[in-house]
Amino acid sequence: MSADRLHSRPGLAVHREGTRAVVRALPEEVPVALVFDGTTQAVMMATPADIADFAHGFALSEGLVESLKQVRDFEIVEHETGIEARFWLAEDRAAALRERRRAMMGPTGCGLCGIDSLDQALRALPVLPDGGPRLAREEVARATEELRAHQPLQDQTRAVHAAGFLVPGQGIVMAREDVGRHNALDKLIGALARQDMDPRTGAVVLTSRVSVEMVQKTVMAGCPVLIAVSAPTAHALRLAETANLTLAAFARGGGFDLYAAPGRIENGDAHVA
Amino acid sequence: MSADRLHSRPGLAVHREGTRAVVRALPEEVPVALVFDGTTQAVMMATPADIADFAHGFALSEGLVESLKQVRDFEIVEHETGIEARFWLAEDRAAALRERRRAMMGPTGCGLCGIDSLDQALRALPVLPDGGPRLAREEVARATEELRAHQPLQDQTRAVHAAGFLVPGQGIVMAREDVGRHNALDKLIGALARQDMDPRTGAVVLTSRVSVEMVQKTVMAGCPVLIAVSAPTAHALRLAETANLTLAAFARGGGFDLYAAPGRIENGDAHVA
Repeated sequence: MSADRLHSRPGLAVHREGTRAVVRALPEEVPVALVFDGTTQAVMMATPADIADFAHGFALSEGLVESLKQVRDFEIVEHETGIEARFWLAEDRAAALRERRRAMMGPTGCGLCGIDSLDQALRALPVLPDGGPRLAREEVARATEELRAHQPLQDQTRAVHAAGFLVPGQGIVMAREDVGRHNALDKLIGALARQDMDPRTGAVVLTSRVSVEMVQKTVMAGCPVLIAVSAPTAHALRLAETANLTLAAFARGGGFDLYAAPGRIENGDAHVA
Repeated sequence: MSADRLHSRPGLAVHREGTRAVVRALPEEVPVALVFDGTTQAVMMATPADIADFAHGFALSEGLVESLKQVRDFEIVEHETGIEARFWLAEDRAAALRERRRAMMGPTGCGLCGIDSLDQALRALPVLPDGGPRLAREEVARATEELRAHQPLQDQTRAVHAAGFLVPGQGIVMAREDVGRHNALDKLIGALARQDMDPRTGAVVLTSRVSVEMVQKTVMAGCPVLIAVSAPTAHALRLAETANLTLAAFARGGGFDLYAAPGRIENGDAHVA
């Protein structure tokens, strides 16, 4: 299967002035199967780039492993129909995962599975410790603008999301792109882990809105600050508060809204003048 | 659990000029379990509105039922942790679904599941018959603008997607909103079916980009035209071509790009002057 990140495709541009042939760069997406010890955990449609980062980030942010030390072996296999990311875990972790899977399968057909499934969707999150990075207001205000300089695929397609990592005093030090906003974040989390960079020292910056899953993944990765260009959902905000995650949203046009755990941003807990 | 579609939440707006307290209307999202004959098929995070439309649309667009005649009974149950949408299917359909589920479970732990899962992600789509609605260029060009008049939740939150149904000569006749773009489309598909409106007579209009799943769901619903404000992925375009789905993207600013199956749009197959 083609692993190009984008394809040039001809189209017909129709405008008031008339019609002309155009060639657009469209982002690719392929199914990626995330397989742990021979069992598929999920299949995600993703941009075929940084697949190892994506897979390792998914493993961490979904709690399948607690650290990359638990990964015994890893390989990427390209098939006609998509890409397979295969993990083999250390034996104790593999056993824990088998147990978890058995518990999640539950008794099917009992008519109560809906409730069990709802509980699983909102898995308990760890609470982030106080402290961590201390960000200047100016850094937060210009974070999403700065991220734009790290989005080469977006420059060509205007159709993909990005997640970046902002370190106080250093700006955006790493970024990853994907057609899916969850995948972009997983790629960033995986890239940080694989390069031995500590998520506790900076902030995740997103081109998207903040849904429950984005808070879950950021907290699971151990990163204490989330900055996003768009709105949080009410549910995501409640989760951020509970997990002690600093949440800055609507970060654009030189400003931002500060919601949860404001203490990690300079004068974030200042009262209104 | 609260079923309000939005919540007013206080925040601190930080801008160059200083800081002020604000109250923002944030969209809610809740886990919705889609349960068929006592077995959970999926849990989706969704806006708690039009849940019956959402559930029925999901059942149709994911091929769990072929028509609403196969639904024997349906109820919505609200729990502390989320919403459960429970279907009971007609016996022959229930049996077919059990069989499909058995086949999909497959032999786990065989090391080949990744490949099986990749195949399942790209299920074969029906090919739409030629013909169907015939849309004027002007109708397509102003479709997403017209949809804006049908997005009350977006007016309040600036953070939700919408899917509308455009009928030639009548404009947008129905629309649904959700924090998730897939959910908005499923809600529309369900609303059309429950009100006995024929998806084959018009076009789906989306506020989002066009990923593979959006093409899959539109084709499964039998709708032959898809109009979106943003870009398609290259993969989504290939699928649209194969399924004979008319695809107009970048529909904004009074124009659009026409890609697949252009014959359903007036002069869509015209050569460039």
